[in-house]
Amino acid sequence: MSSDKKSVYKPKPISGFPEWLPEFRAVEQKWMDHLRRVFESYGYCSIETPAVEELEVLQAKGEVDKEIYVLNRVHADPNEKSDARLALHFDQTVPLARYVAQHFGNLTFPFKRYQMQKVWRGERPQLGRLREFYQCDIDVIGVDQLPLAFDAEMPAVMYEALTGLNVGRVQVRISNRKILLGLVEALGIADSVAVTRTVDKIEKIGDTAVADLLQKEVGMDAKSIDAVLQLAKIKGDAAAIKAITPQNKQMEEGVSELAFVMSAVPAGSAIADLSIVRGLDYYTGTVYETALLDIPQFTGSVCSGGRYDDLAGSYINRHLPGVGISIGFTRLFDVLSHYGHIKPGPKCPTQVLVVLPSEEKRAEASATAATLRKRGLNVELYHAPQNVKKQMEYANKKGIPFVWFPPFDAAGNHEVKDMASGAQGPADPNVWKI
Amino acid sequence: MSSDKKSVYKPKPISGFPEWLPEFRAVEQKWMDHLRRVFESYGYCSIETPAVEELEVLQAKGEVDKEIYVLNRVHADPNEKSDARLALHFDQTVPLARYVAQHFGNLTFPFKRYQMQKVWRGERPQLGRLREFYQCDIDVIGVDQLPLAFDAEMPAVMYEALTGLNVGRVQVRISNRKILLGLVEALGIADSVAVTRTVDKIEKIGDTAVADLLQKEVGMDAKSIDAVLQLAKIKGDAAAIKAITPQNKQMEEGVSELAFVMSAVPAGSAIADLSIVRGLDYYTGTVYETALLDIPQFTGSVCSGGRYDDLAGSYINRHLPGVGISIGFTRLFDVLSHYGHIKPGPKCPTQVLVVLPSEEKRAEASATAATLRKRGLNVELYHAPQNVKKQMEYANKKGIPFVWFPPFDAAGNHEVKDMASGAQGPADPNVWKI
Repeated sequence: MSSDKKSVYKPKPISGFPEWLPEFRAVEQKWMDHLRRVFESYGYCSIETPAVEELEVLQAKGEVDKEIYVLNRVHADPNEKSDARLALHFDQTVPLARYVAQHFGNLTFPFKRYQMQKVWRGERPQLGRLREFYQCDIDVIGVDQLPLAFDAEMPAVMYEALTGLNVGRVQVRISNRKILLGLVEALGIADSVAVTRTVDKIEKIGDTAVADLLQKEVGMDAKSIDAVLQLAKIKGDAAAIKAITPQNKQMEEGVSELAFVMSAVPAGSAIADLSIVRGLDYYTGTVYETALLDIPQFTGSVCSGGRYDDLAGSYINRHLPGVGISIGFTRLFDVLSHYGHIKPGPKCPTQVLVVLPSEEKRAEASATAATLRKRGLNVELYHAPQNVKKQMEYANKKGIPFVWFPPFDAAGNHEVKDMASGAQGPADPNVWKI
Repeated sequence: MSSDKKSVYKPKPISGFPEWLPEFRAVEQKWMDHLRRVFESYGYCSIETPAVEELEVLQAKGEVDKEIYVLNRVHADPNEKSDARLALHFDQTVPLARYVAQHFGNLTFPFKRYQMQKVWRGERPQLGRLREFYQCDIDVIGVDQLPLAFDAEMPAVMYEALTGLNVGRVQVRISNRKILLGLVEALGIADSVAVTRTVDKIEKIGDTAVADLLQKEVGMDAKSIDAVLQLAKIKGDAAAIKAITPQNKQMEEGVSELAFVMSAVPAGSAIADLSIVRGLDYYTGTVYETALLDIPQFTGSVCSGGRYDDLAGSYINRHLPGVGISIGFTRLFDVLSHYGHIKPGPKCPTQVLVVLPSEEKRAEASATAATLRKRGLNVELYHAPQNVKKQMEYANKKGIPFVWFPPFDAAGNHEVKDMASGAQGPADPNVWKI
């Protein structure tokens, strides 16, 4: 028996923890660069927080239903006093709240920050539901108060961010929870949480099923159910919102805020849609969801958020209202690549491959590569002296667009081959500045 | 008693998990952008692997002495079949090996990749020794063989990468383990591992202590110890290496390889230094360390690596030699910022603050901000109509360099204030293109 083959541990992909081949990673990088550029163009600064928080911090508002991963060391040192229990963050909002509370005196408010990091959730993985994924968030935090103008800035930024990703038409849908909550109050229904959580299901299960639940589970009468469903049907611009007749102060506030936001968002980027309520009770005013109108396979919201009254109340005795919105980046990337909507990028960043015809010419070829790099180009020197055909094959296989022949003859002419067209000729000094 | 104050959980920094204020994060980003640019200019592609690997993958070569963090979910689902044990990666070399084995058929070789991710080690934290830190790695992987030219490319790339970070003079120190191992073989010493591990301590404990250990622990005689220490003293260029008299084939190979590498690295970037052996037995030829000559507080090597014969032998039955080098990025950043060597960057990316004199002028001011953004500038619109002095104060506090006054009068002139010089006047159309 041959024992040539060693026993190896053949690694498998880990479900819910995606990774990409270089040509898809190149697209992911391009997308993240674009998002960063847009966020910075509106003055948002970058922060990063550790991957972990103390478990107490994550659970400061009570047990959270996200599946949290806690850390244990393989070998714990028995002499060391035990560490705080650390857990991987499951979003970037809790870490932001902790960061703002901890560094309060060193930040300038309103504090505008973006954050693009991986987060972890121990959920059962499926397409579009991952255990490790990037979120790309922007938030603005004020002290004591925060102007409503920021509620209009969120969708403006995200519309620009998402439309730059070549994902077809993007529609931000905006509502204000005060309108529905005001109506619920006016109708004399005590359990407002049950109503908003049920209305939140309209897009998934439809009007009839929601009406049924409102009757059976919340105990609402037909007239009240009708009032709620009629409200949730309202869609349109600032004018459509102004046409609503508020039935109390809370509803009036919601209408006025939403009308302001709709009048301030860029034309064509967003509609008001009162069926949007967001499940989280956390939000106190404006709420957002975002639809990709041209990609039916992508269901649900690609970018969501809202206004919250008190960001960091669990960690600091200051009143810090905020508004934020978040792209589920890897979910979007995963679903789009699954359905073939993402065209792979280059396998490597190399723009020019410099030919190495023989070991003797290494210094000369290497100097040419260095010169081209100084011109801002990404340049590889072929790694071993081999026949030129083999070097061309390498360029082809890696998708390198140009192959460069340094002046190895007395005439001193550089030649370039354009791999796409096949044309080869002297390097035009105006183009290549060499 | 007043109960105005809620009970809050005051968060503390977690030892070993650094995070930065926005003005230092801005520098960190700038540094990482620079490293990425240099890596790509040499044709390295980006990959990212998940933060976790299966514990079996991390331990495929046997128990590792790094303190590994394993993950447990807070609430495990009893009906779900138990997951593979997942652990946070402690470096990027094991993940690279697993990645290359898993995606072997979809990669083009030599495979040149860079990777800039956080890694985790449950060590006892102190200044410069962290539990979460960025590593910035480049590696090249070949199939069956890998040209020695790549051993010379590593220090060239890293020298360019590090000198761009404004950390003073950078010196890459290069050796080849075959030289010392060859000598040890020629001297008839069986335990070569003990010799290399002891010689590795020269910089820390000095010649005499090393000689002592070689005698007491390895049992070497005075003549052999002297031969080893004389070899470890050799420093210089290709000529200094060529002057070594090899005593067997292995030593001859090492001398010839190191002389080639030294002749191919950019002038002034590196020296050959035979005291460099690296503790890891993993390396089989070229080895690197890097010193910051002008920053005495930064001890040890900022950037290390070497050649390995067989990257992924634990995961695939292919012979994949490689060479790689890694910057301990956060360690560098942490130590330099601790000693005040890092000048904080801007608190926010905003270049221009557009004044909002009154709510009525919002549309006009907002349009001006949008126009300036289209010119490629990072622009904030002041968030609330307030007196201009207050708006100036905000710009000052955030370090925004220019404040912009849209044409709110009949004349239609834009005015700009340069916050550094205090000069205010009409916006020059040639400069601002408005």
